[in-house]
Amino acid sequence: MSKGLPKRSEDYSLWYNELVKKADLAENSAVRGCMVIKPYGYSIWEKMQAQLDKMFKETGHTNAYFPLFIPKSYLSKEASHVEGFAKECAVVTHYRLKNAEDGSGVIVDPDAKLEEELIVRPTSETVIWSTYKNWIQSYRDLPLLVNQWANVVRWEMRTRLFLRTSEFLWQEGHTAHATAKEAMDETVQMMNVYAQFAEEYMGVPVVKGRKTENERFAGADETLCIEAMMQDGKALQAGTSHFLGQNFAKAFDVKFATKEGGLEYVWGTSWGVSTRLMGALIMAHSDDNGLVLPPKLAPIQVVIVPIYRGEAELEAISAKANEIMAELRKAGVSVKFDNRDTHKPGWKFAEYELKGVPIRIAMGPRDLENGTIEIARRDTLTKSTFELASQPVAEKITGLLDEIQESIYKKAFDFRASVTSEVNTWEEFQQVLEEKGGFVSAHWDGTSETEDKIKELTKATIRCIPLDRKEETGSCVYTGKPSAGRVYFAKAY
Amino acid sequence: MSKGLPKRSEDYSLWYNELVKKADLAENSAVRGCMVIKPYGYSIWEKMQAQLDKMFKETGHTNAYFPLFIPKSYLSKEASHVEGFAKECAVVTHYRLKNAEDGSGVIVDPDAKLEEELIVRPTSETVIWSTYKNWIQSYRDLPLLVNQWANVVRWEMRTRLFLRTSEFLWQEGHTAHATAKEAMDETVQMMNVYAQFAEEYMGVPVVKGRKTENERFAGADETLCIEAMMQDGKALQAGTSHFLGQNFAKAFDVKFATKEGGLEYVWGTSWGVSTRLMGALIMAHSDDNGLVLPPKLAPIQVVIVPIYRGEAELEAISAKANEIMAELRKAGVSVKFDNRDTHKPGWKFAEYELKGVPIRIAMGPRDLENGTIEIARRDTLTKSTFELASQPVAEKITGLLDEIQESIYKKAFDFRASVTSEVNTWEEFQQVLEEKGGFVSAHWDGTSETEDKIKELTKATIRCIPLDRKEETGSCVYTGKPSAGRVYFAKAY
Repeated sequence: MSKGLPKRSEDYSLWYNELVKKADLAENSAVRGCMVIKPYGYSIWEKMQAQLDKMFKETGHTNAYFPLFIPKSYLSKEASHVEGFAKECAVVTHYRLKNAEDGSGVIVDPDAKLEEELIVRPTSETVIWSTYKNWIQSYRDLPLLVNQWANVVRWEMRTRLFLRTSEFLWQEGHTAHATAKEAMDETVQMMNVYAQFAEEYMGVPVVKGRKTENERFAGADETLCIEAMMQDGKALQAGTSHFLGQNFAKAFDVKFATKEGGLEYVWGTSWGVSTRLMGALIMAHSDDNGLVLPPKLAPIQVVIVPIYRGEAELEAISAKANEIMAELRKAGVSVKFDNRDTHKPGWKFAEYELKGVPIRIAMGPRDLENGTIEIARRDTLTKSTFELASQPVAEKITGLLDEIQESIYKKAFDFRASVTSEVNTWEEFQQVLEEKGGFVSAHWDGTSETEDKIKELTKATIRCIPLDRKEETGSCVYTGKPSAGRVYFAKAY
Repeated sequence: MSKGLPKRSEDYSLWYNELVKKADLAENSAVRGCMVIKPYGYSIWEKMQAQLDKMFKETGHTNAYFPLFIPKSYLSKEASHVEGFAKECAVVTHYRLKNAEDGSGVIVDPDAKLEEELIVRPTSETVIWSTYKNWIQSYRDLPLLVNQWANVVRWEMRTRLFLRTSEFLWQEGHTAHATAKEAMDETVQMMNVYAQFAEEYMGVPVVKGRKTENERFAGADETLCIEAMMQDGKALQAGTSHFLGQNFAKAFDVKFATKEGGLEYVWGTSWGVSTRLMGALIMAHSDDNGLVLPPKLAPIQVVIVPIYRGEAELEAISAKANEIMAELRKAGVSVKFDNRDTHKPGWKFAEYELKGVPIRIAMGPRDLENGTIEIARRDTLTKSTFELASQPVAEKITGLLDEIQESIYKKAFDFRASVTSEVNTWEEFQQVLEEKGGFVSAHWDGTSETEDKIKELTKATIRCIPLDRKEETGSCVYTGKPSAGRVYFAKAY
């Protein structure tokens, strides 16, 4: 009962696309590169948002909202920033349509041309720092810890649902600090928040690291990141946290009066995660039968499917199911009873497998007689019979949900370990990348030239310089020049 | 201590603008007509969102997300819809910038012109109904009950913070039904949800009614609305719920197989409220000292200000304040202890008055001795001494918060009653509008011509045809022609 999904082993990419559509997560819209996030997909994203928002607030941040449009001239104020984003900006040039004189429909009114074109935000550093200039006068105004949930647009030629779309949803934190140290501490803190979220909620283990200059955010002095590993051996950047130095403060002239009576530029950070996390979540755990969701992010944690013939049987089962549901809900478990008579149990089983519901409970007349239920785990596809008298059902289920959450993480962790290789020669490097993929830990001479060359030859990039790498000097896997330590290479989404 | 706000009686409009800025709710951005919603303002909006979202989910709706951009041609598919929105659309024509050859900065790349221009959504009926075409095949797919939280853009020439901005945040519900009756029931239901939210949470009484043809949503067969009354006697449309008939189903060819085996067009609704509600909230209750917030939407419900000299006194007060805070938090009250030594108590009092915190508790050394606290109500600006031994403090405060919530509503209700007038002659109509403003309940002959003429002469529009109007025939206040009942006229935001 695989609902007609392609197999991962045959065509991973097609499997992903079909899964996203068939599980009602998202679909392409009529506008190139812009997706529709469908209700079921959006309900997962809402759970992610709620948890992340909680974590941001617990670390002292508040939300605000800044404009969608950015004057074109703002983008130019930070030199490397414009370099990074100009080529993918949607540009608003007019503010009105009118009826064509020949009656052919509606056209852009040439008389409604804007004096200065507006960019649809690809990210909001420029508009936010132009605002911070008015918000920050003195050290008393610092730190300024603000987050925004918003849509952004980066025009993409090749798009994939959730992973790379022209419009996507994200959060972007933008903070301002009195010292470089405080800003760097914030940068590290938010990377850690992202890592904790990925591991504890998404069940996705991540490598924390620094980006090389090549891969750094346009306008940042340092970019920290979390990198996840997908089942096809490709890495996925799941979140970034940027130390902006004084770059945007200088570009927008944001200074503050210090305690000591001086006047200094402010230090900044920005950090973000996006609906791309949905892609990571889907690809990290799911299988040929459909989605596998970690219980902490599953919109429906438990589904109860009655197996019955005729009204009387359904009524008896419903009564018991209602009891169980009440107990589960009291324990904070989200549960659905699918008593639709339009579909057979087998169809429902396949449907909830496709949708990744962590636990399925089936109940038939014999279960009622015996005081049992059948419990099926989505992650392992195993079934067992549970005697209701043996343990309170809510205790059993919450325990099992915790176990599943942990087990999903462990499986992803073990998989990542199995595709993480230390290599020391160029031949080995190429071979491992070719045959196994995954993270390839290798020495690198620290130059952008070598990084570019390796990318050209193998399509692998340096995903990060792991923060916890051990002290080890060596020779670059490609040039043989001295290296200060290993970095992680991988092909990536 | 009015923090330098203008008085409402002197310049209501200036008072509003200054209040919005000084209370840290919002400010204008560098982009014409687009506002920045500041952290304090946004935290109120978040409370509104959370409650509305809960009410939408309780009535069976789920959230989803549709693209920001709409192909220009989509807008034309529903004739009256394009008529209504074409003149205020931001248009994306290009997708890339490049460096000017003369080195003068970044310019729009003429080679990156879109084949079809994209509209930044002013509302999403068109893009959503083009999607529903694929989601709806049979009666089993109905009703489809979807909501979206999003930003929309309607290019405005004259803007005012929250009330009329080129970009604003809102929610838009879009539902599809098998019958006209179901769609109309949904339209009414959502108007009632809005009314309940306005009255129970915002403390703003509203009139429920139907819009006249002139004021109807572009593309709707019927528009229901809730209309609120501001302190200056002007009305504010606070929410609308549209019965779309089969208009969008026909425009986008959305048909469904009926139970009986036929094929029919689907019936639709859409409904929305926006950050405009923030404007209504501010204007309905606030006074010359600043914001007055209903407790249910106040980000901080109680602030505790210590009155002290020296560390020892502060320490003793803090110990007691912490006890009180713990009790209040346990009771679900949001409370802040402002022990900053950079500001005097008087400054803090004025600050929290400006920010509309419903209850202020002050505690000095004498209070500690006497086992008392001073409780000040923001809405009435009254103070009283409370003996801590007389009643559990959490009980006292939660009771008082309820009382304030009710009292704020009652005050607004009484004010509205005082500016609602029944008039029967054209002279009286003009005089009441001129001298008192408010809702003017009058007979109208039912024609758009008369409505237009009255608007031209008095600036008053028909806010709505109240749903609960009594059966009463009469003669139109302007033309003297027969009328089937009274309608509400008012000048409006």
